[in-house]
Amino acid sequence: MTDLLIRNLRPMGAATTDMLIREGRIVKMMPGIDAPDAAIEDAKGAIAIPALVEAHTHLDKTLMGMGWYENAIGADLRGMIDNERAERRRLNHDPHRQSMRHALALAGNGVTHIRSHVDVDTDNGLAAMKGVLKTRDALRDVVEIEIVAFPQSGLMIRPGTAELLDEALAMGADLVGGLDPCGIDHDPKGHLDTIFGLAEKHGKGIDIHLHEARQLGAFSMELILERTRALGMKGKVAISHAFCLGMEDWNRTQALLEALADQDVAILTTGAPSIEVPAVKRVLGAGIRMGAGCDGVLDTWNPWNRPDMLDRVRIVAQKNNMRSDVDLALALEVCSTGGAAVMGVTGHGVALGSNADLAFVNGETLAEAVAVGGPVALTVKAGRITGRAGQPLMEAP
Amino acid sequence: MTDLLIRNLRPMGAATTDMLIREGRIVKMMPGIDAPDAAIEDAKGAIAIPALVEAHTHLDKTLMGMGWYENAIGADLRGMIDNERAERRRLNHDPHRQSMRHALALAGNGVTHIRSHVDVDTDNGLAAMKGVLKTRDALRDVVEIEIVAFPQSGLMIRPGTAELLDEALAMGADLVGGLDPCGIDHDPKGHLDTIFGLAEKHGKGIDIHLHEARQLGAFSMELILERTRALGMKGKVAISHAFCLGMEDWNRTQALLEALADQDVAILTTGAPSIEVPAVKRVLGAGIRMGAGCDGVLDTWNPWNRPDMLDRVRIVAQKNNMRSDVDLALALEVCSTGGAAVMGVTGHGVALGSNADLAFVNGETLAEAVAVGGPVALTVKAGRITGRAGQPLMEAP
Repeated sequence: MTDLLIRNLRPMGAATTDMLIREGRIVKMMPGIDAPDAAIEDAKGAIAIPALVEAHTHLDKTLMGMGWYENAIGADLRGMIDNERAERRRLNHDPHRQSMRHALALAGNGVTHIRSHVDVDTDNGLAAMKGVLKTRDALRDVVEIEIVAFPQSGLMIRPGTAELLDEALAMGADLVGGLDPCGIDHDPKGHLDTIFGLAEKHGKGIDIHLHEARQLGAFSMELILERTRALGMKGKVAISHAFCLGMEDWNRTQALLEALADQDVAILTTGAPSIEVPAVKRVLGAGIRMGAGCDGVLDTWNPWNRPDMLDRVRIVAQKNNMRSDVDLALALEVCSTGGAAVMGVTGHGVALGSNADLAFVNGETLAEAVAVGGPVALTVKAGRITGRAGQPLMEAP
Repeated sequence: MTDLLIRNLRPMGAATTDMLIREGRIVKMMPGIDAPDAAIEDAKGAIAIPALVEAHTHLDKTLMGMGWYENAIGADLRGMIDNERAERRRLNHDPHRQSMRHALALAGNGVTHIRSHVDVDTDNGLAAMKGVLKTRDALRDVVEIEIVAFPQSGLMIRPGTAELLDEALAMGADLVGGLDPCGIDHDPKGHLDTIFGLAEKHGKGIDIHLHEARQLGAFSMELILERTRALGMKGKVAISHAFCLGMEDWNRTQALLEALADQDVAILTTGAPSIEVPAVKRVLGAGIRMGAGCDGVLDTWNPWNRPDMLDRVRIVAQKNNMRSDVDLALALEVCSTGGAAVMGVTGHGVALGSNADLAFVNGETLAEAVAVGGPVALTVKAGRITGRAGQPLMEAP
């Protein structure tokens, strides 16, 4: 692989310099690098940041490019779940094609790593899983995709789902998913014993959707922590949404945060504007790994989310009332290195020796680039250019 | 003034038709209109909606075009107020130029009516007021601007401010503003007696910023209602933000909503993601007029807000968990006809006889156009084209 020399970039907004990339790593960073055999790219003063990380999404759900979907369902969780399961067939939804569109839209706009939940249910079986596994392979050089086998429709209430999850993990899913053990399955012990059992059997991690609010969510979180301890799964569990950590009961929340930190359980947020969410500074201050994601994009659930992690920085920051330049940098961090830490990616950064997984953004300062948002001028994955001006170089189907 | 014939538009997403505009009004709407003397515009299938209304902003604050402003202040209300007052001088902020930039950015993107608060304080006197009054005159044919004389820095705690407000109203401000009678002035009786007294003296309406949360805000709201009743100001008072209406105490909130409806006090929201806000459906359901605004844009307060009311539809809808096509139309309504109702504008709509104040947006359906957001394809004010593709036709200074 040819070396890549990027000229005239500003690492994190600092003074203009050059960067030499070899074998997917940053091997030199100084002004006026001479590298006669390298391919040359002029960053034209753009700011280099660690690539963005989409750490909570659903690549198998988007309807991008399929015409406008009329949503007549509203915001009831159970209603949205059942509606989507039925609509997949009616709309002739192709999970491979759709996940390619979604992942490439992200990859063209600064993202090099994606964690995607993928629905597994007894109506549609492993169709979504197969489609996204194919996408993961097809995009191996563009974006790294982690797949969570996700019982979106429930587990205990839909017999046969556990067996399908087992199969999905055998097929190559990277983590076991879960969902509102009380709110959806109405059997928290059954739900959590099943998914922790599957994780143990396959030696894989866990990422659980927890929408349950306040004391109910706190109860489920305690059951998760209990099993994490009992099975020695410290550092291998993540909780997505974790709305209960946004509750007002400071002491109850604090006890949960301390327990999460003790077991190195990671938190993934979408900064959901309409509900209480974990406070970024409080979670990070407790020493907990925290990433963020856009959630499902243009699907049967929601018309608002975009495949754009800089848009998500804005949403997370606004939700957390983050306004100062320093706070903007922190919100960006959650959406880049924070997500990388949750996904277990090492060497994610803009430093000598780091992976050459980078995004280049335009602005006078880092804060301006973050506030103005996309499109990302240039995306680099393992030293290869994968996106320009917000568009992926690989064409989507 | 020449008639304007707009061809191939879809009123609110309905079937394609033509529209004839004469003397600032929609006088004919049917396919195949013949109007040989009219100027002709092809809407190319765009959806016609009532023009957007920016009903809560601060035209005198933006730093648009002045380079990136490094915010080292964060989110403390008193800190942001004092910082801004000092920074106006240091930055050599020109309120006329800046308000022209801001208002034209809105006008180019579907807005025909703006209600702007304008700072009046004993440091900067009436400089901002004079600048925005000049902008109001300069843009008379492009966008209608209502000006609120706003004691941003406090009233009772800064002697001399009341006299300046009095002068501002005599100079042409349309309404008296106010701000957190407890939280900022620490003298709710003094504050409210002063601004209601000024409103009575000048025969003008009131629009009060009320950030105070929960029981404190509810207390201030009761004092506002008391004076509205006592002075017979029914229908002439608006409360901006009104965060206290987002509190969980359902009964307390209900009593306030009923009293607001009784006195026809209007509510203006920004859909602030980081705090409890009035629920759109609850406020409208109580029979209360409700509009929305982007608040200050690219100023010393906040890097996130944009001069874009379709972006604000998204923020308001996300905050209120509005997702269905029907809900999207409702969120749009708050940001168009809702704001018009608060500003006392009659005839705002897309119907025979309505004012020809229109925005044309692209989408398969109304919901898609709203979800995709700007730029607005075409803006029409009183039958004149004022914006194309999100850009104003009049050049900003």
